[in-house]
Amino acid sequence: MDRRTERTVVTHISNSSAGHERRRRTDHLVVEEPLTIRLDGALVATTMRTPGDDFELAAGLCFTDGLLGDATITSVRYCSDGSTMLQIGRDAEPLRDGNVVSVETGGRAPAPTPRLGNVSSSCGWCGNDQLDAMCARLDPLPSGEPFDLDVLRCVPDSVAAQQPLFAETGSVHAAAAFDRDGRILVVREDVGRHNAVDKVVGSFVLEHDGPTGARDRRTGELGLFVSGRASIEMVQKAWAGGFGALVAVSAPTALAVSAARRANLTLAGFVRSHGFNLYVP
Amino acid sequence: MDRRTERTVVTHISNSSAGHERRRRTDHLVVEEPLTIRLDGALVATTMRTPGDDFELAAGLCFTDGLLGDATITSVRYCSDGSTMLQIGRDAEPLRDGNVVSVETGGRAPAPTPRLGNVSSSCGWCGNDQLDAMCARLDPLPSGEPFDLDVLRCVPDSVAAQQPLFAETGSVHAAAAFDRDGRILVVREDVGRHNAVDKVVGSFVLEHDGPTGARDRRTGELGLFVSGRASIEMVQKAWAGGFGALVAVSAPTALAVSAARRANLTLAGFVRSHGFNLYVP
Repeated sequence: MDRRTERTVVTHISNSSAGHERRRRTDHLVVEEPLTIRLDGALVATTMRTPGDDFELAAGLCFTDGLLGDATITSVRYCSDGSTMLQIGRDAEPLRDGNVVSVETGGRAPAPTPRLGNVSSSCGWCGNDQLDAMCARLDPLPSGEPFDLDVLRCVPDSVAAQQPLFAETGSVHAAAAFDRDGRILVVREDVGRHNAVDKVVGSFVLEHDGPTGARDRRTGELGLFVSGRASIEMVQKAWAGGFGALVAVSAPTALAVSAARRANLTLAGFVRSHGFNLYVP
Repeated sequence: MDRRTERTVVTHISNSSAGHERRRRTDHLVVEEPLTIRLDGALVATTMRTPGDDFELAAGLCFTDGLLGDATITSVRYCSDGSTMLQIGRDAEPLRDGNVVSVETGGRAPAPTPRLGNVSSSCGWCGNDQLDAMCARLDPLPSGEPFDLDVLRCVPDSVAAQQPLFAETGSVHAAAAFDRDGRILVVREDVGRHNAVDKVVGSFVLEHDGPTGARDRRTGELGLFVSGRASIEMVQKAWAGGFGALVAVSAPTALAVSAARRANLTLAGFVRSHGFNLYVP
């Protein structure tokens, strides 16, 4: 059974000049459940997510948030059952076995610091502080060949054909990785758009050759697609993941554009097959 | 100057049989900045928000998250300048003066506990734990008259006429409170949909007669509109705010439907003027 959707009965109301018509029908809802993520035993996040690809989500979140430092993930497992352990690059992930996932680096990851709650001055963080913190952690992406405009404009339609959860429920976000020929390499769906992106990045971290190797070899070569807006976190995750372009169905925020400029990240918004906006470069 | 949007220059790409046409044009981006919220001096949240209505956001978040207990807010102020204090029901909120807001109850609010990070067992929280925690804190809404179906289906169009930030940027969420005659009482816009809802609830908490009085008098009488999906947090905030109906432009999640049933909250999704789905009742 797919734990990612649930059946329910709804009353559909349709309006016409004759009044309201009520009709009972079956509908499919997307499941959301909390997932708690630990890194070397320390709690680092709890996120509302759609079950499935939990190991990718946990690995991707630790990676894009910069929690791993220079460490490599040695295993990922559900805490509820020590036996369901994933040895990187060897075993497949079980469908789902709990709501706590532990990412292990053998204690080599730095001790976690609070996410975004780190207030350093009486006036708090501002957007520029965030950008400075990102720049301190991440090198600008290389200035390579620009992405082909036809590739960028066609990505949303290509991904749409691979969103089964959206087709079933009509309400779930997608993220995807694509190459410079427009091939869609990975698609992940989740009730949270941050989660969908972390799952995509996590799939590279886990299935290829660990975060550092994966990032080094493909920096700037792949693009990241998000089905919603491009907020600052989306740019941060794309940058951390080494993607050279971010394609969003909706608009970027002002802070996201500033970050993409400093990252040297191509940023396209309102992307449709007939046209789009290029915010960076 | 409105600090909520920023001008930028974008390259618009349009595609035709003759190839790509590039045109430079001015665009408006929505601003996102971190806001740190303190309650009686303790850090309770940092959220990426669109500046404006910060006091409502801080008060609303503390209220909908149940952080106030039985306490009443006595003042809200920016930490960067002690003089910009809001005495509830007396002064207007300054446009913006920093990124840290302090909500004060004179120490009568309970000591804050971690939000969602509270893992009580080895298998973590699950959806049912969350529902149980909500039910322990919130009484079911009264079983009053159902909302008029014409009122529910017309809410999105009515709110759309009052979304200036969306009109300018094309990418910002809205939340609104409406009464049983379909009158739109409050509309708030924000880059985050949670924030938009907290601002709406906060406007009642601050501008009317404090959280308890406001909730008691209008429990079940008003409806809450959200421009996106109805996730579990949206139902929690609607329930905590005493709204009798939640109208969403997109779908609810499975957990949101379960929560709405236990709350006795009318839940409508995919709401358009020509029809919608009623998930609860």
